[in-house]
Amino acid sequence: MQRKTFSEMNCSIARSLDEIGEWWTLLIVRECFLGTARFDQFQERLGIARNILTARLKRLIEIGVVEKVSLEVNGRREGYRLTAKGEELFPVLVALQQWGDKWAVGAGGPPIQMVEHTSGQPIGPVGPTSSNGRLLNYKDIRLEVGPGAGASTKQRITERNLAVLGVGESA
Amino acid sequence: MQRKTFSEMNCSIARSLDEIGEWWTLLIVRECFLGTARFDQFQERLGIARNILTARLKRLIEIGVVEKVSLEVNGRREGYRLTAKGEELFPVLVALQQWGDKWAVGAGGPPIQMVEHTSGQPIGPVGPTSSNGRLLNYKDIRLEVGPGAGASTKQRITERNLAVLGVGESA
Repeated sequence: MQRKTFSEMNCSIARSLDEIGEWWTLLIVRECFLGTARFDQFQERLGIARNILTARLKRLIEIGVVEKVSLEVNGRREGYRLTAKGEELFPVLVALQQWGDKWAVGAGGPPIQMVEHTSGQPIGPVGPTSSNGRLLNYKDIRLEVGPGAGASTKQRITERNLAVLGVGESA
Repeated sequence: MQRKTFSEMNCSIARSLDEIGEWWTLLIVRECFLGTARFDQFQERLGIARNILTARLKRLIEIGVVEKVSLEVNGRREGYRLTAKGEELFPVLVALQQWGDKWAVGAGGPPIQMVEHTSGQPIGPVGPTSSNGRLLNYKDIRLEVGPGAGASTKQRITERNLAVLGVGESA
């Protein structure tokens, strides 16, 4: 087991991966976005072993990404759905899908296209944008010290802006 | 080892995770965005074991996300940098960072803020948007059949649009 916890790193990417970086986790979240709610549906659609699915759902409930819900009026049949925290993973999945559509796609091309339901317009590439809507790449970005930065983060921000942008201070 | 390959799933999210879903992989990519280039820098900054770092870099080179580069004129010192395929993971990392800033942040708040270098404007939330710039959530999105869809994907698209949007056909 090569896993170590990333939660002690003072980095929101690391903390996110600590919560949702497990094998299967983002695919379970994907299933929720696809409308999957019942345990047996997750199992069948993902081809995942029951014990692993049980453990992953338990963990997702613990961290507040998924919650249990009654699927019938009498409440006998339970299912799972995303919380607000879980629903806000949608941009992560769209970014992963778009990257995969371009760089890791099968011979036939992208299997799924996303459109805005009301307009029918295809979804454009997601990412940070300028105020005029232009997509920004990482060389367009300057890092600045956030409220949770310690001394080592400040040092890294300075080094990064120097290395990538050639500017000495984070302003 | 609970890993199985996701590469045979006809889903760009699964294929992306198959390439970059390994422990450490996205943090190594993060380091590249932060300007890290030398093996010993990756090791020190990530606190990662040499053998694991070696294996992850080898894999990242194999899949074309990272490439070796000479860091000195005489070429004796080698380093690593992102390819175009790797640089296009930036939206994935920004989406993860923003989610973590909101949902998995430490007590002090976000450690790093991103601004557009030329304007100094903070980066807004990334995600799919309407033509007027409004962020769309997953309930605003309709799935349509892409060129790589097989019968089972078509069936899942129909089921998903019915479950999430209440519409019967993918248009």
